[in-house]
Amino acid sequence: MSSSNRILTILGSTGSIGIQTLQVLESSTEKYELGFITANSKIDKLEEQALKLNPYGVAISDEKYYHEFKNKTKFKGKILCGEEGVLEAAAFEKNDLVVSALVGFSGVQPTLSAINSSTTVALANKETLVSAGSLIMNAAKEKKVPIIAVDSEHSAVLQCLIGESLDSVEKIILTASGGPFWTTPEEEFESLSVEQALEHPNWAMGNKITIDSATMINKGFEVIEAHWLFGLPINQIEVLIHPQSIIHSLVQFVDGSVKAQLGMPDMRIPIAYSLSYPKRLNYSFPRLDLSDIGILTFEMPDYFRFPCLKLAYDAIDKGGSATAVLNAANEIAVHAFLSNKISLPEIAHLIGNALDKINNIGQPTLNEIVETDKETRLFVTNLINENYK
Amino acid sequence: MSSSNRILTILGSTGSIGIQTLQVLESSTEKYELGFITANSKIDKLEEQALKLNPYGVAISDEKYYHEFKNKTKFKGKILCGEEGVLEAAAFEKNDLVVSALVGFSGVQPTLSAINSSTTVALANKETLVSAGSLIMNAAKEKKVPIIAVDSEHSAVLQCLIGESLDSVEKIILTASGGPFWTTPEEEFESLSVEQALEHPNWAMGNKITIDSATMINKGFEVIEAHWLFGLPINQIEVLIHPQSIIHSLVQFVDGSVKAQLGMPDMRIPIAYSLSYPKRLNYSFPRLDLSDIGILTFEMPDYFRFPCLKLAYDAIDKGGSATAVLNAANEIAVHAFLSNKISLPEIAHLIGNALDKINNIGQPTLNEIVETDKETRLFVTNLINENYK
Repeated sequence: MSSSNRILTILGSTGSIGIQTLQVLESSTEKYELGFITANSKIDKLEEQALKLNPYGVAISDEKYYHEFKNKTKFKGKILCGEEGVLEAAAFEKNDLVVSALVGFSGVQPTLSAINSSTTVALANKETLVSAGSLIMNAAKEKKVPIIAVDSEHSAVLQCLIGESLDSVEKIILTASGGPFWTTPEEEFESLSVEQALEHPNWAMGNKITIDSATMINKGFEVIEAHWLFGLPINQIEVLIHPQSIIHSLVQFVDGSVKAQLGMPDMRIPIAYSLSYPKRLNYSFPRLDLSDIGILTFEMPDYFRFPCLKLAYDAIDKGGSATAVLNAANEIAVHAFLSNKISLPEIAHLIGNALDKINNIGQPTLNEIVETDKETRLFVTNLINENYK
Repeated sequence: MSSSNRILTILGSTGSIGIQTLQVLESSTEKYELGFITANSKIDKLEEQALKLNPYGVAISDEKYYHEFKNKTKFKGKILCGEEGVLEAAAFEKNDLVVSALVGFSGVQPTLSAINSSTTVALANKETLVSAGSLIMNAAKEKKVPIIAVDSEHSAVLQCLIGESLDSVEKIILTASGGPFWTTPEEEFESLSVEQALEHPNWAMGNKITIDSATMINKGFEVIEAHWLFGLPINQIEVLIHPQSIIHSLVQFVDGSVKAQLGMPDMRIPIAYSLSYPKRLNYSFPRLDLSDIGILTFEMPDYFRFPCLKLAYDAIDKGGSATAVLNAANEIAVHAFLSNKISLPEIAHLIGNALDKINNIGQPTLNEIVETDKETRLFVTNLINENYK
């Protein structure tokens, strides 16, 4: 590897964000090299990416797939195995930037691994801050490592805050499309199918985040994420329904002025910003034409039809390990919904139950968060097995 | 005057922007003192302001009103006379900031006077840059004096550019309400009354600028102003109709990202920003609530029904003294419309005529601009007298 180019490692390169990150890099005017790319099980995609882009190495977190890949690959670089392998990829000493695009709780330890190696992190995995926000931000502060938001909403806030003082922020307003069921009557929620829930009106995303958008817990996660990323108390972070997903979020300042970032709903724009931050590079992504779009609308969020959003506010209010419970309960519940074991509204019931029953730890260590995560998964799995099968 | 406070002089303190500037200062948490406040003819208002706020002095540009004021005032400070007096107020050596809130061409020389005294200018008088943009910006560059936009649109652009590189700007999009006649059929334009034209849907402003909004030449002036303030070619400055006046303008960057500044249509917000720039101070101005507003709409501008907007693009394209002709012809035509001498559509005809007939000077000096201004006024006045009475 030549030393002059920036070296990027992408954790989760075969997922939706990982693939779009590689698309951005391919059309970038800035030179870069790939450190590691990692996958969980999509080894065919990983093979294709590795042969095409020639990274220093790959890591495969599921050992079964590691062996399968290892046996048949034509890739000549380093091949790392298991969760340990992903941690090693995140800590690769030549990394200039680690894009953390893993799904769910699995993002926590690799993200910490990158931070502890003093590497800047572009964070697309919101569950990392939901589960372990305090730990992550403390580690980043200690190592003086910037955590750059990749989510379109947090990227919008970051862009609005450039050149401004955090002291002059009155509140952050995260926009939400409302997901596929914003206008669905409450009585129909019980019978909504997996297929219906996977039809997001604006964004093409992975399955987990698409279901999280349908229940709106995704927006709750983003509130928690914004709390940690920008260091603002939860009562200064609001949600605004904006079905067109054109205004990606807003910041209101103490003088009554409001700034917003807008764009086509295309994740490549915030991904590109996270890679070039605080600069901007030339990209030919589709341009926004507001006269063509014509109308933008806004509504108050509905905490009654979307109780998951309220549960997220409750969890951060409770503090400690409660948001780790929130995330773990949600991961198990979403998996059960995707497997047709429970209905969509049961997701909120299961999370509420877990938040009530799982012991809250005030200032959890990493081990305590990992234990809380395990305990919650077991608790919710048992609940599902007892009640829904 | 104590030396620790900032000293502000307000040129045009009795007009709409001047009055609102004083309101902002009264509710400001920052300490300031008034240098001069100036008026043209509203001496009762000036007297009231002077007795209440105790500036170092006042200036009255119309000599007749100067004498009347001088004879009856209880104000004990300095009283300056005529246009010379306003220039002296602008050049007052203790000024830290001059707010230029004069109306029309009368703003050019006092603004230059402030710049030449190395004083930062908060510029609310857009005709200054329309008539003499090159001169003003060259003087500001030479004296290293910042020119801070007060107009809501340019303040929006300034706020979106904070922390960004000008090189990364793809275009500026100035929003326009469309004024009171945006939905009026073309055949009714001929018979529109002064009273109808003075009813702006969103903004409370002076008479001149309200008529300029009705013809949309105001937006053309703002395009020219943006060209000078931000140093962008005219083909990177667009106009977007946005009847609700909530998004005050937008900046599109080379990566496809767009930033916007929003707020209630209240001039105190951009005025306050121009005074505290680049900081923000706490103000209790009404806050924006997008869920309450509900809908924002956007349309393409209509250069056929609003030919004045097109004339402004033509004038800056022509360059030299053409924009001074544009402004002078408009000032006389608007005055004639306000005096019921001509119809609203005649304003564009008169300006077009003046742009065709008045000789264009490539790199005009201040004297040449003053002469062009006079020549245009005489030309348009004669046209009106010959054809419309």
